[in-house]
Amino acid sequence: MAFEKIEYKPIPVRELLREMKNLSELMIDLAYSAALFNDRELAEDVLELEKRIDTLAYQLEMVTMIAARDAEDAEALVGVSKVASAADKISDAAADIAAIVIRNIGVHPIVSEIFERVEEHLIKVKVHEESVIVGKTINELDLAPRMGVDIIALYRKNDWIINPKAEEKIQAGDVLIARGTSEGLKELMALCEGKLDKLED
Amino acid sequence: MAFEKIEYKPIPVRELLREMKNLSELMIDLAYSAALFNDRELAEDVLELEKRIDTLAYQLEMVTMIAARDAEDAEALVGVSKVASAADKISDAAADIAAIVIRNIGVHPIVSEIFERVEEHLIKVKVHEESVIVGKTINELDLAPRMGVDIIALYRKNDWIINPKAEEKIQAGDVLIARGTSEGLKELMALCEGKLDKLED
Repeated sequence: MAFEKIEYKPIPVRELLREMKNLSELMIDLAYSAALFNDRELAEDVLELEKRIDTLAYQLEMVTMIAARDAEDAEALVGVSKVASAADKISDAAADIAAIVIRNIGVHPIVSEIFERVEEHLIKVKVHEESVIVGKTINELDLAPRMGVDIIALYRKNDWIINPKAEEKIQAGDVLIARGTSEGLKELMALCEGKLDKLED
Repeated sequence: MAFEKIEYKPIPVRELLREMKNLSELMIDLAYSAALFNDRELAEDVLELEKRIDTLAYQLEMVTMIAARDAEDAEALVGVSKVASAADKISDAAADIAAIVIRNIGVHPIVSEIFERVEEHLIKVKVHEESVIVGKTINELDLAPRMGVDIIALYRKNDWIINPKAEEKIQAGDVLIARGTSEGLKELMALCEGKLDKLED
């Protein structure tokens, strides 16, 4: 197994920590969904994200080392480092759950039942070229108030955008991870797949 | 440090696993809040819950051992065991965050910023004897639709009730953990403390 060298990059601690926290929470959701739907591809995404969190953890460690110039700085920053390692543990837990799917252990009905949320579900859907949502911003889709759906992440050109901003424009080929009511998710799926030609009112 | 002997109890795997999952998620929320508000008491609750998860993990391990009578059972149940250990890791991560507060490391502004949710907050509040909500069921309080507030856990007589049912009656002395809009939480707090005499419309 080959690993890339992790180089120091002057990324602000704030950004690194926020991404680690958001990613780790997303991973738990994805891992639950992967187990619930026995979705191997989603499980592989979780393992992919776990590698990314590891990289972020190394970077954050280097950035805090450089930022701390005296004892006072070090005391202030050690808490940041602990929170980062907590996010790392959460992502490990998500990877463990994903591994159940990858290793074909089989998802016990008890596990499915535990992960099933009464009202909330998660989908992963690719945006087809002919979809009406291509070129629209997330804001324009008006998903949350209209359909009870949130786009929590999107995968574009081998990169994850977590909690995409309202001004983010959807591109053909984007893979969306959305959370919401079953009705709303069905509509979003139809929109993404080009099976629905206009946003319903 | 004295630990109680953990005895085998014939609790269904389903119940143990559900409680572990729910508790671990609650702990993450509580740990974030403890860090955000530098709330030592809340942080101690997180560590208390971590012990409970450990106990549940032992019990679940024993119950699955006894339930598995042949290779097929064992293969079906190993996934359950992995999910339980993932919940355990999540609870460890929560405990790490709580430890920042307990050990007076100090919560760095970056950490507060990361944990701050834009619209959602968490409170912990004790129900006073003279509060109008004593004796009412959670359903009667009508918190979610009326105030945008959910009671996610309550602490009663040294025991946690996670995701209390709609029919659960509030008792004087209960400690509620609630999540919701700041407005709604302010109202709930005033109600619990007996500073507000009736449910607003």
